[in-house]
Amino acid sequence: MTTATALLLADLTGVAVFAASGASAAVVKRLDLFGVVFVGFVAALGGGIFRDLVIDEVPPLAFADWRYAVTAALTAAAVFWLHPQLARLRTAVLVLDAAGLGLFTVTGTLKALAADVPPVGAVLIGMLTAIGGGLGRDLLTGEIPVVLRREIYAVAALAGSIVVVALDYAGVTGPLPLVAAVVLIFGLRLVALRRRWSAPVPLVDDPGTGDTIRPSSERGGERRGV
Amino acid sequence: MTTATALLLADLTGVAVFAASGASAAVVKRLDLFGVVFVGFVAALGGGIFRDLVIDEVPPLAFADWRYAVTAALTAAAVFWLHPQLARLRTAVLVLDAAGLGLFTVTGTLKALAADVPPVGAVLIGMLTAIGGGLGRDLLTGEIPVVLRREIYAVAALAGSIVVVALDYAGVTGPLPLVAAVVLIFGLRLVALRRRWSAPVPLVDDPGTGDTIRPSSERGGERRGV
Amino acid sequence: MTTATALLLADLTGVAVFAASGASAAVVKRLDLFGVVFVGFVAALGGGIFRDLVIDEVPPLAFADWRYAVTAALTAAAVFWLHPQLARLRTAVLVLDAAGLGLFTVTGTLKALAADVPPVGAVLIGMLTAIGGGLGRDLLTGEIPVVLRREIYAVAALAGSIVVVALDYAGVTGPLPLVAAVVLIFGLRLVALRRRWSAPVPLVDDPGTGDTIRPSSERGGERRGV
Repeated sequence: MTTATALLLADLTGVAVFAASGASAAVVKRLDLFGVVFVGFVAALGGGIFRDLVIDEVPPLAFADWRYAVTAALTAAAVFWLHPQLARLRTAVLVLDAAGLGLFTVTGTLKALAADVPPVGAVLIGMLTAIGGGLGRDLLTGEIPVVLRREIYAVAALAGSIVVVALDYAGVTGPLPLVAAVVLIFGLRLVALRRRWSAPVPLVDDPGTGDTIRPSSERGGERRGV
Repeated sequence: MTTATALLLADLTGVAVFAASGASAAVVKRLDLFGVVFVGFVAALGGGIFRDLVIDEVPPLAFADWRYAVTAALTAAAVFWLHPQLARLRTAVLVLDAAGLGLFTVTGTLKALAADVPPVGAVLIGMLTAIGGGLGRDLLTGEIPVVLRREIYAVAALAGSIVVVALDYAGVTGPLPLVAAVVLIFGLRLVALRRRWSAPVPLVDDPGTGDTIRPSSERGGERRGV
Repeated sequence: MTTATALLLADLTGVAVFAASGASAAVVKRLDLFGVVFVGFVAALGGGIFRDLVIDEVPPLAFADWRYAVTAALTAAAVFWLHPQLARLRTAVLVLDAAGLGLFTVTGTLKALAADVPPVGAVLIGMLTAIGGGLGRDLLTGEIPVVLRREIYAVAALAGSIVVVALDYAGVTGPLPLVAAVVLIFGLRLVALRRRWSAPVPLVDDPGTGDTIRPSSERGGERRGV
């Protein structure tokens, strides 16, 4: 297996996992078959479409290479029919999702750097590639995006994209450091899930007592998934 | 009347119908005059703006040709002032909307093919051109997009864009086959409306009984319109 | 201080104010630190990213010049920690927001004209540059965009962008007329705030009595802010 084939396989695995997450959210909202496939498509490919528009790679990969759209659609359709069985796979999906997060961040950051985007912009584009699909999924299903509310998710992507840009700046080349960045994001995300880490939430004034409290009910909650 | 004039008139009719659908949804939400016109603009031109960004035709037609924006704005403003009378035209609007769906799908697919987008991508872009405005309309008015929930709407567009790409692949040229594709989408949509066809919805576990049911209340319901 | 420096400072002030407005809306929704910074980023830079995509200036300024993203992120983080104190600054923020509205409209319109967008398109792009970030902020926080519902906000931007395009059409050059356009938008917005002007809302049928009424409760209400 060549490196290109390995990369494509890894990329399509990420697409499938994100499509499953989107389809699963759509099933919960009782969307119809088309809606489930569409939300799966957006969750899997929305971040990459945004990335490609921003770095002027048109048409975006999601439209230029049929394997991306077909992978997303087939996975989402499978979730539509199989979702009662998939509920048992929740842990597996969370682990694969963490892998997809790592992969999409690193490839997104690399593509931005290759398109001559300066460092800070490349960091942001890498992170947006990874979280953009989930944002689209949540907007389409009428939710405030979960990535803005809870847990370490985007922050893991951010840490990874900073590492990729720093490696590029330091002139480090070769696939190994990039694999390390994927593993870093993957590991951060898994540890955060396990320990129920979350980013701080703002202090709010309790309307009842006037006390300033940090609402515990908002922390470390469940995450929507298959 | 030349073909170009006929096409422009047909296109602007589609813009007007979609603007009416957006404005009508905005009136229901009691948005102000600006909000009604803005949602009408997005419903009429959002799909085309997305299409043009993706195929790198910039500035998008909605900004490059003033007749599009003006048609959308005037129609939406008319709905703002006349909507009590328009309620009686509900059937006419649904029929015109089906015509707009057919037209936007076919022109969107053709533009994608002309921009050298491969077949699967062109099918997707054609469909997104037709349903993108409605998605924007529903997101702006705080609804889960109706196209993801009910009835045969996007699927009719999808069928039509597949036909257009197949005709192109087979080397068929001339306006007649394209008109046939528009009519196909238009007809599919009207029959679906008439027979209350809808895409399948997922099986869900009834929280009360634990039985797996298909929720009948989600099927074949009303569609928001003027 | 050169003109370029003055313009950059003014631009970054607009970014900071819009970031504060986004962060403040996110704090109200109890998003976490990342969510507050992200919504601040979208509110400050979303309109400009849309503008740059539409006029094919890629990568968009928000990704090409690190000072924009850093200003937005630092301001939003400051709101996260300081928001109880900031509540007292509500009036100051509304005034600065009106200034940002004027500035973003004028620079957005000028950039569209410089990219050879025709007059009507340039007017629309200028207005969308100024209101796009607020639309993104409201969609991310699960609200129907406030700009579509109440008060004179987008309409002030629209009036200003029409003036800029008219000046360009008339061949008027130099910074002074542009400053006048900024001041016009700023003034319109402040007077509208002060007098609680709002755009008209549609007549609706009262479901209880069947009378056609104009709902008074929808008019001239509060505006979300720090």
